[in-house]
Amino acid sequence: MGRHFLQIPGPTNVPDRVLRAIAQPTIDHRGPAFARLATELLERLKDVFQTRHHVIVYPSSGTGAWEAALVNTLSPGDRVLAFETGHFSTLWCDMATRLGLVVDLVPGDWRHGADPDAIADLLTAGHAAVMVVHNETSTGVRSRIPEIRAAIDRTGHPALLLVDTISSLGSMVYRHDEWGVDVTVGCSQKGLMLPPGIGFNAVSPKALAHRGRLPRSYWDWEPIIAANRQGFFPYTPPTNLLYGLRAALDLLAEEGLAAVFARHDRHAEATRRAVRAWGLEVLCADEREHSSSLTAVLMPDGHDADEVRRLILERYDMSLGTGLGRLAGRVFRIGHLGHFNDLMLAGTLSGVEMGLSGAGVPIKDGGVRAALAYLEEAG
Amino acid sequence: MGRHFLQIPGPTNVPDRVLRAIAQPTIDHRGPAFARLATELLERLKDVFQTRHHVIVYPSSGTGAWEAALVNTLSPGDRVLAFETGHFSTLWCDMATRLGLVVDLVPGDWRHGADPDAIADLLTAGHAAVMVVHNETSTGVRSRIPEIRAAIDRTGHPALLLVDTISSLGSMVYRHDEWGVDVTVGCSQKGLMLPPGIGFNAVSPKALAHRGRLPRSYWDWEPIIAANRQGFFPYTPPTNLLYGLRAALDLLAEEGLAAVFARHDRHAEATRRAVRAWGLEVLCADEREHSSSLTAVLMPDGHDADEVRRLILERYDMSLGTGLGRLAGRVFRIGHLGHFNDLMLAGTLSGVEMGLSGAGVPIKDGGVRAALAYLEEAG
Amino acid sequence: MGRHFLQIPGPTNVPDRVLRAIAQPTIDHRGPAFARLATELLERLKDVFQTRHHVIVYPSSGTGAWEAALVNTLSPGDRVLAFETGHFSTLWCDMATRLGLVVDLVPGDWRHGADPDAIADLLTAGHAAVMVVHNETSTGVRSRIPEIRAAIDRTGHPALLLVDTISSLGSMVYRHDEWGVDVTVGCSQKGLMLPPGIGFNAVSPKALAHRGRLPRSYWDWEPIIAANRQGFFPYTPPTNLLYGLRAALDLLAEEGLAAVFARHDRHAEATRRAVRAWGLEVLCADEREHSSSLTAVLMPDGHDADEVRRLILERYDMSLGTGLGRLAGRVFRIGHLGHFNDLMLAGTLSGVEMGLSGAGVPIKDGGVRAALAYLEEAG
Amino acid sequence: MGRHFLQIPGPTNVPDRVLRAIAQPTIDHRGPAFARLATELLERLKDVFQTRHHVIVYPSSGTGAWEAALVNTLSPGDRVLAFETGHFSTLWCDMATRLGLVVDLVPGDWRHGADPDAIADLLTAGHAAVMVVHNETSTGVRSRIPEIRAAIDRTGHPALLLVDTISSLGSMVYRHDEWGVDVTVGCSQKGLMLPPGIGFNAVSPKALAHRGRLPRSYWDWEPIIAANRQGFFPYTPPTNLLYGLRAALDLLAEEGLAAVFARHDRHAEATRRAVRAWGLEVLCADEREHSSSLTAVLMPDGHDADEVRRLILERYDMSLGTGLGRLAGRVFRIGHLGHFNDLMLAGTLSGVEMGLSGAGVPIKDGGVRAALAYLEEAG
Repeated sequence: MGRHFLQIPGPTNVPDRVLRAIAQPTIDHRGPAFARLATELLERLKDVFQTRHHVIVYPSSGTGAWEAALVNTLSPGDRVLAFETGHFSTLWCDMATRLGLVVDLVPGDWRHGADPDAIADLLTAGHAAVMVVHNETSTGVRSRIPEIRAAIDRTGHPALLLVDTISSLGSMVYRHDEWGVDVTVGCSQKGLMLPPGIGFNAVSPKALAHRGRLPRSYWDWEPIIAANRQGFFPYTPPTNLLYGLRAALDLLAEEGLAAVFARHDRHAEATRRAVRAWGLEVLCADEREHSSSLTAVLMPDGHDADEVRRLILERYDMSLGTGLGRLAGRVFRIGHLGHFNDLMLAGTLSGVEMGLSGAGVPIKDGGVRAALAYLEEAG
Repeated sequence: MGRHFLQIPGPTNVPDRVLRAIAQPTIDHRGPAFARLATELLERLKDVFQTRHHVIVYPSSGTGAWEAALVNTLSPGDRVLAFETGHFSTLWCDMATRLGLVVDLVPGDWRHGADPDAIADLLTAGHAAVMVVHNETSTGVRSRIPEIRAAIDRTGHPALLLVDTISSLGSMVYRHDEWGVDVTVGCSQKGLMLPPGIGFNAVSPKALAHRGRLPRSYWDWEPIIAANRQGFFPYTPPTNLLYGLRAALDLLAEEGLAAVFARHDRHAEATRRAVRAWGLEVLCADEREHSSSLTAVLMPDGHDADEVRRLILERYDMSLGTGLGRLAGRVFRIGHLGHFNDLMLAGTLSGVEMGLSGAGVPIKDGGVRAALAYLEEAG
Repeated sequence: MGRHFLQIPGPTNVPDRVLRAIAQPTIDHRGPAFARLATELLERLKDVFQTRHHVIVYPSSGTGAWEAALVNTLSPGDRVLAFETGHFSTLWCDMATRLGLVVDLVPGDWRHGADPDAIADLLTAGHAAVMVVHNETSTGVRSRIPEIRAAIDRTGHPALLLVDTISSLGSMVYRHDEWGVDVTVGCSQKGLMLPPGIGFNAVSPKALAHRGRLPRSYWDWEPIIAANRQGFFPYTPPTNLLYGLRAALDLLAEEGLAAVFARHDRHAEATRRAVRAWGLEVLCADEREHSSSLTAVLMPDGHDADEVRRLILERYDMSLGTGLGRLAGRVFRIGHLGHFNDLMLAGTLSGVEMGLSGAGVPIKDGGVRAALAYLEEAG
Repeated sequence: MGRHFLQIPGPTNVPDRVLRAIAQPTIDHRGPAFARLATELLERLKDVFQTRHHVIVYPSSGTGAWEAALVNTLSPGDRVLAFETGHFSTLWCDMATRLGLVVDLVPGDWRHGADPDAIADLLTAGHAAVMVVHNETSTGVRSRIPEIRAAIDRTGHPALLLVDTISSLGSMVYRHDEWGVDVTVGCSQKGLMLPPGIGFNAVSPKALAHRGRLPRSYWDWEPIIAANRQGFFPYTPPTNLLYGLRAALDLLAEEGLAAVFARHDRHAEATRRAVRAWGLEVLCADEREHSSSLTAVLMPDGHDADEVRRLILERYDMSLGTGLGRLAGRVFRIGHLGHFNDLMLAGTLSGVEMGLSGAGVPIKDGGVRAALAYLEEAG
C-alpha cells in the first residue's frame, strides 16, 4: 500500500499528467492533427537540448539512439576515441566494435569523468570521432564536455564529438550548440519523466554533412528530417509517448529549465551530505564531477549492496539502482531525478537509512537529518 | 514537481489503481453488467463494516450519510444524546437540530472521546438514540464504542446507537455487528481511498425495524434495499466511483484488513513519537483514545498552526489539516491514513519538521529520527 | 470487442477527456487550488443554465436535486401543481408527497408535454409552486416552459416554477433567467457528459427569498452559497467529478452551446425519420414537443420492446432505454445526446434496424438510409 | 464531439482497457515485478504468432522489426527474392538494398499477392531468403504463405522465408511454425490494438542457427534471447506499452483467437458487399486473396480519393487510409481491424457512403444496407 518509490536512475517516477497524456486515444499519424503535434514537439525539443538544429525522435530505447549516432556518422573501420568512465561507456564501445568500428578506449577507474587533459596526447589523425558519456549512469560521475570540446579544438582536429546525455538530459545543464557537440544521444525515461520508448539524436550541421558509410535504414537521419518538415515520420511514430512528451515539456516549461537544474543540484548535494553523515563514501571522486541526477554509494567492505537493495525493496517498497559490471555488489545507486521533490527525497533517504541499518551496515546517525538541514538552509 | 503530499485526514491519497478504475466508461445502470457489479460490491462492503446486514450506498458526501442515519430512524421532536468530542460531533448535532430533533449534547474538552461512564447518568427515558463519532476527524481522538454500547446495555435502555466512522472506516478496527451499533455512517474519501462522492449507512435489523417519521425520500433505506436485491438503485448510482470502490476493496483485501489496521497503528505511533521528540503535545489526552488515522498536534503558545501549514504547502507541497472550530490556529492535523507507507510517512514527518523549524516554532531535534527508529524496530 | 454503444438517455457516453480528467489525483478541498477550481466552475455553470444567479452543486444524483428544490422552497402541507408527462414527473410527485406536500397532479397520456392552456384553470390560490419536467426522459416529450411561465404570469399568481431539466441540460435550449424559472433541477450524467454523482439547482432570487419550512440540512442552499463565496463547500465536494465538469464545460465551450443544441436537433430529426421509414411510431404526439436528446419508439402490438433491447444488447453490444412504468414493454428509448456524432448515430440506428429485424418486428426497409439522407442534406 | 473513427489500417482504435493499462506507473525494468511481467508476455506472445519458439520484442516501429529480420539473418551482398505486392513490399526491399543486400524483386500489379507458382522458376541457388508481405497494408491483398512455403520446399531450396505480418497479426489466421516461416515481422498498432512503439520478430530455429554477417547490435537477437531467459532485456524495454500488451492479450484471449479471426472475416465481407453495392471496385483482384483487416477501394476515373478522405475527415470525423505510392489518389483504404464491432462498422460504412456522395462520386444506393443485411445474415 502507498506509492512505490522508484529511485533507480531511470526509468524515473512518471508524473500523473504524463501518464494521463499517454492514455489519450491514438490518432492517424498521417493526418493534420498529428502533423501539428509533431511540428510543435520537434520545435520545443530544441530547447531541451539547447540547439537550433534538428532533433531526431526514434521509437527506440536509448541504446537505439547510441546506434543511430554511430551508423549515421561513421564508416566501417573508422577509429573512435572513447573513455572508460563506467559501465555504459563500455557498452557503447562494445556496440561500436560490433558495428565494425575500431575503438581506442582510454581506461578509467569508474570514479572520474573523461579527462580533458588527456585529449591532446590521445587524439590522432586516424580518429573520426570522440565518444563521451556526459553523465555516467552507472557511477554518478559527470564528464566536463565543454573542456573536452576545448581540448579537441586546441588540437585543431576535425573529430566529431558524440555525447551520451541519457541520464542528464532535462536534469543537468546541457548545451548542445554552445558546447560544440556533434551528436547528442538522449532518451525519454530519465529527466524527461516519460516511460521508456523514445530515443533522441540532436545533430549538428557538421554531423549532418559528415555522413558515414555504415549501412543504415531505420536509423537514417535523412528521410526522417525530410518527413519531419511536414510533421511526419518515415515510420509509424510512437504517438502515445509523444502525447506524454508534450505533457513533460509543459511541466519542464512551467518550472523553467534553470529551476529544474537547480532543484537537481540541491537534491544531489543533500544526498551527498546524507551519505557522508552516514560515514559512507560517494563513488564519484572529483568534486567537479558529481552528477546531479544520481548518487552512487560505496559499500563498506564485507557488505553486499544488493542485499541492502533487496531488503529496502521488500521492507520499504523502494527500488534503488544496482551496481553494474565491475561495481556489482559494491555500490548502490540512488536516483534523485525527474519528477521529484524535497519530501520524496526525504522519504528516499529515510528508506536508505533504515535499509542500511536493517541490513547491519555500520553507519553513523544523522544522514537524513543532515539532508533535511541542507534542504532547509538551501530552500 | 514531484508528487503532492495530501496529508489531510481525508480526502486521502487515491491509489493509481483506483484512479484508473474510476476512468472506466460509464455503463447502463439498469443493465446486467451493472447488476453484477452492484451485487458484488454490496456483499463485499459488509466485510469492511463487519456486518452481516445491509450496507446502503448513497451518491453523497459523508454529511449526507449523517442525514440519512437521522431521517430514517427518528421522528420530529425526538431527543438524542450526543457527546461533544470535537468539531464534527458538533456539526452532526447542529444537523440534528435543524432536522427537528432535540439534542442533549454532553460537553467535552475536545481532547477526550465520549465517556462511557457518563452514559448511565445521562441516558433518560426520553432519548431515542445516542450519537457518537468513533474517530473525531477534528481532534484525532477515538471514542470507545464497545464500552459505550455496554454502558447503554447496562441501563437496559432501548436507545439506538448511531456511530460516525467517517475517518476510521477501513483504517481502524471497527465491528458494526459485534459492537452493537445500529447505524454506522461512513464515506468514500478516507480509509477507503476513494475520491469523495459516496456515503454509507450500515444498518442493524433493529434500526430497520425502528423507522422514524421524519420526512424522507432520497435517503429512505427501504426503496434502496428493495432495489438492491436485483443489483439496482432507485436513483442513478455513482457508477464510476463504484468502479473505484471495487478497486479499493481489492487493495484492502490483498493487504488484509488486519494488516491494514496494524499499518495504521504503527504509523500513528511513529507520528506521536516524532511529535513528542519535537517537544510538542498531541491533542488527544487519553492514551486509550489515540486515533490511528490522524494526529492533531498542539502548537506552542504564540504560534499559529495555519502559518506553519501555509509555509509547508508553499515550500514542501504538502497539505495538512487545519484546526477546526475552537481549535483554529491552535492545532494542525497530520493525516496518515489510506494509501500510505513508511517512506510516505518519513516524507510527511520530514516536511512537518522542516516546516515547524522554518516557521520559527521552537522544536527539539530528532522527531523524524524517533519515527524512523520506531518504524525500524516495529517493522 | 469494439466500443459499447451506450444509447440510453443517460448516463451517456463519457468523453475520453472527461474520463481522464476525473482520474486526476484528489486534492485538499479546503486549499487554494480547490478554491480556484470551484470558483471557476460555479461561474461557468451559469452559462449552461443561462442564469446570472447562483448554481448549487450537490454530491448527489438528479433525484437528490429534485429533493433539494422542494425542501428549500416549500413548507409542510404546501400544495403544488404538477403535470403527469411521464414516469419521472410521477416519481417527482411521489417524492413531494413523501416529503409532506400535497400534489395536484394533472393527468396526462405520456405522449404530450404539460399543457400551458390548462394552467389558468388549474392554478388556484392554494398552490405554492408548479412543478414541470422540461424533457421527460421516459417519453421523449418536451414541455414548453416559456409558454407555461407566460400562462402562470397571465394569472398573476405568485407560484414558484420548479423545472426538471435533467435530460435536456446541455443538449437542448434552456434559459433559466429568461424563461422565469425559479428552481432548475439538473444533473451530471446526461448532456453534461459526466458520470453520475452531481446534482444541480439553479436558483432565482425569488426562490432564494421564499424559503420554506420543510426540515433540511444537507440540501440547504444557504450554507452552500455562503461557503461558495470563498470557493468552498460545507460538505466534502465530489472533487474528481468536478475535474470532469471542467473538462466537460471546456468541450461544450469549444463546440459552442448553439452548435451543441443544433447537433442534437439534427440527430433527433434524423432518428425520427428512421423511425418513420421503418413504419413505426414516435411516442411523442405533438410536433412542437419532440425531445432532441432522446426518442421513444412505440412497438407494434404483440411485440415486446424489452425482447428487442435484449437482442440488441447481446448481438450488437448496444444499450437502449427500457419502457418505464406504464410504458414497460411498449416502447424502447434511443438516447442521442451528449458526446455523440453522425457516425455514432449511424451505428446506433443500424443496430436498432438490425435488432428490430432480428427480433421479427415487421419494419419497412430504409430507416438508416432515411437518416443518412437527412444527415447529408442537413449537414 | 463524439468519438473519432480511426479507420486507417493501423494504428487502430485502442481499447479503453489498453489505454488505462499503459497509464500504470513505470517500474524498475531490472526488478522482480518486471521479470514476472516479461516472462508472462514472452510466453503468451507465442500463441499470437502460433509458434513454440522465441518471439523478440523491440522498442521500435514495425520498420525496425523489418530491419531486425534482415540484419540478423543475412550477410552483405546476399541475394533475396521478393515480390512487389504493393507499397510496403517495395519499402522493405528498399531497406534491404540500403543495408547492402541484392534484391530480386518480382514485379506485380499491386492487385495480387505473391505468386506461389512463380517460385520454382525464380528461386535460384544464389538466393539466401524469400521476403513476402502476408497482408499488404497498401492494397488489402493477402499473400498465400503456406503455398509459397510449399513451393519453396518443392524446389528443395534452403532459402529462409521472411514474412511481414504487420497488418494481419492478431486479425487474420497466421501460423508461424506450421507454415514454416523463418522470421515473422510484426508490430503493436494493428491487430494487437496497442499504440505504436513495439516491433516483433518470431524466429525459427533455422533462422537462429543461420546468423548473417550484417553488422548489428541493437537488433541482435542473441543478447535479447539470453536476457529474456531471466525476464530482462539488454536495453530499457518499453514498460508501459508492455502493460498495454498484457491487456491486449487478455482481450484477445477472452474473445478467443478463432472468434477474433471470424469477426474480421465477417466485417471484411460486409465491407466488400457495401463497396460492390455502391458500384465501386475492390482493389484486390483475386477472391482467394482478400485481406480481412482492410479493404482498398478503387475510385472511378476523374475522382480523387484524397478529396473524399478530406471531406470525410472534416464532415464526419473519420480517418481513412490514403492511397500510397502509385495508388495515390486512386484508392482509399478502410481499416476494419482490431477493436471493432458491427456498429462501428455500420458507422464507418455510413461515413464512407455519405462522403462519397457528398464528394460527388457517382455511387449506387444501398451500400450500407447490403453490409447490414450480410451482418444480420452472418450474425
